[in-house]
Amino acid sequence: MEGDRIEEATLANSPVDEISHLALDIGGSLIKMVYFSTEKDKPQKDGRFLNGGLYFLKFETSKINECLDFISSKQLRCRGIQHCGFPASDKNIIKATGGGAFKFADLFKEKLDISLDKVEEMSSLVSGANFLLKAVPSEAFTYVNGQRNYVKIDHNDLYPYLLVNIGSGVSMIKVDGDGKYERVSGTSVGGGTFWGLGKLLTKCKSFDDLLEMSHQGNNRVIDMLVGDIYGGMDYLKIGLSSTAIASSFGKAISENKELEEYKPEDVARSLLRMISNNIGQIAYLNALRFGLKKIFFGGFFIRGHAYTMDTISVAVDFWSKGEAKAMFLRHEGFLGAVGAFMNYKLVEEFPNSNSLVGDLTDNGIIECRVHVSS
Amino acid sequence: MEGDRIEEATLANSPVDEISHLALDIGGSLIKMVYFSTEKDKPQKDGRFLNGGLYFLKFETSKINECLDFISSKQLRCRGIQHCGFPASDKNIIKATGGGAFKFADLFKEKLDISLDKVEEMSSLVSGANFLLKAVPSEAFTYVNGQRNYVKIDHNDLYPYLLVNIGSGVSMIKVDGDGKYERVSGTSVGGGTFWGLGKLLTKCKSFDDLLEMSHQGNNRVIDMLVGDIYGGMDYLKIGLSSTAIASSFGKAISENKELEEYKPEDVARSLLRMISNNIGQIAYLNALRFGLKKIFFGGFFIRGHAYTMDTISVAVDFWSKGEAKAMFLRHEGFLGAVGAFMNYKLVEEFPNSNSLVGDLTDNGIIECRVHVSS
Repeated sequence: MEGDRIEEATLANSPVDEISHLALDIGGSLIKMVYFSTEKDKPQKDGRFLNGGLYFLKFETSKINECLDFISSKQLRCRGIQHCGFPASDKNIIKATGGGAFKFADLFKEKLDISLDKVEEMSSLVSGANFLLKAVPSEAFTYVNGQRNYVKIDHNDLYPYLLVNIGSGVSMIKVDGDGKYERVSGTSVGGGTFWGLGKLLTKCKSFDDLLEMSHQGNNRVIDMLVGDIYGGMDYLKIGLSSTAIASSFGKAISENKELEEYKPEDVARSLLRMISNNIGQIAYLNALRFGLKKIFFGGFFIRGHAYTMDTISVAVDFWSKGEAKAMFLRHEGFLGAVGAFMNYKLVEEFPNSNSLVGDLTDNGIIECRVHVSS
Repeated sequence: MEGDRIEEATLANSPVDEISHLALDIGGSLIKMVYFSTEKDKPQKDGRFLNGGLYFLKFETSKINECLDFISSKQLRCRGIQHCGFPASDKNIIKATGGGAFKFADLFKEKLDISLDKVEEMSSLVSGANFLLKAVPSEAFTYVNGQRNYVKIDHNDLYPYLLVNIGSGVSMIKVDGDGKYERVSGTSVGGGTFWGLGKLLTKCKSFDDLLEMSHQGNNRVIDMLVGDIYGGMDYLKIGLSSTAIASSFGKAISENKELEEYKPEDVARSLLRMISNNIGQIAYLNALRFGLKKIFFGGFFIRGHAYTMDTISVAVDFWSKGEAKAMFLRHEGFLGAVGAFMNYKLVEEFPNSNSLVGDLTDNGIIECRVHVSS
């Protein structure tokens, strides 16, 4: 899958010796990490700036020790920060957001002597999204008929928009400007539902395998379609085609089949379609409520997965009769982590946000220069 | 369960010899039947009126032969109708709604020589709901803290309202008056999802057993709660308590448990809560969109089940901050069938709709007098 490259490439390529400034978003299922690192083959210092890149990494929250080991092994705490010349007072503090910043604060203190400086979750998502949308030229795209179309963001016409972050659960946030936002809705039917329910139904061991399986499946095997009820006909009166889903998983009622008799691919497909469609619908209803035409979808659920984006796009298009547009973000899973990172206030030191970014390289590293105080 | 009595009592008590005027609502999962029958111990004819009752019955759509056998064995086609003195031209025609009125039209013709006179599905739901709300004094009720509170319907202040019919799928209809309505939304996550997915997950064989199981379960075993993410704390900033569900089925991600290691009761509970809450939320968002304060929930999914009604009520109350009210209908599952029955145009013959109903007896029979033409 396309989206995979972002964190997988960085695992191998990351010049980890030079890490400084790391931020975490510790969610219910995943820990998302963003860090700044200088590059070995480029001059590291350039006047008051350091050349480097923002790198992206993820861990499972249930395997938090892998995250602690990573931070510890790379000696972020001492060598990295000292090398980069940041104030020594920062060295035992990491910006962190998500519920895990509360839940695991003691663990970080105990194991690494690091204090987590908590950044509010919604605030992180919003500042992460705002930063990425403004600073990264090809961050946002629509997904129509299997095609990514990158959207040029007009900095003067970005707000208001609806930010839909699909993590374990889903948050929907109306964003009116930098630091101006309100969480207006959400749903518990999110990525955790897909992964949790999908694991129970298919015995699949990983989220990405489950997504991949859904790609091979056919939802018509288990979903009850309009045509199944209407004898193959459309229900024209209310504009539902015979292939529209009348009832997700509804066909399982009348068929005397056990779970094991269904192909796990088909189960995964129905589940993905149910959840994506539901999120698209609730997002649209909230956009409508506040007159928002732009809906940006982020969060680790999406994973650049074509069918997920397609279902969400079609749902928004169907319910809004083409009025609202679903857009996706290249760094979808890292909005909160980027937002927490922004809290280091390095951004304010830059002449303007455009100069932050040289290029978005293939593996998702954002090249940038950060201001140093010494 | 309370709701069960409606159709179960009639199976035993129905004075089936005297059946006339029968209507069907043939859905994706269930066939709902409403028929008028005179009563043996009362004078059957009273001037231009017949004393009798409206009776309610259901069959599974996958066992449609049971429905055909019932109609055939009770000789509805000849004795009943002739006995009641309705015009002979009616005798081979039955009013029917739902997708099955299309799908099974040939089957009825072939097996019983009966033609199904199709009544549009949304139109039936609306006329059924309007009739019941106006004609049956204790039809609608709220459900708060385990308590049914019957609502007195002001005939002059009934419209507009949102009708949410939860069958296999869910339809949401804005009702502005008799015959004045629009299907404004819906969701494929409905009763068919609860039953279908529930069957796959728990191997439970009947819808009512699944509901009963959910009553015994605890959703916190599998749902990821806000407190699970925030280390037991509330997420106060956005008003979510530690016990709010952050991600339905989300806890299944991190626990290395197979489906069989969970109690089916807990699985059924999480599923019921997920679906009820989702329907409540989407209903509220649609009510908000059109400024509707009254939301009536019908359809066979509810089954008078306390936890379902409680979850829907709490969802509507939570999302609307107390502004909108969820109400339920005593004959919830039979709106479409009653609506199709109304299409016999008997109602127009009554002096006023109140005189239609003597009482709503314990088993849900609506006592009434119908006008006869001879």
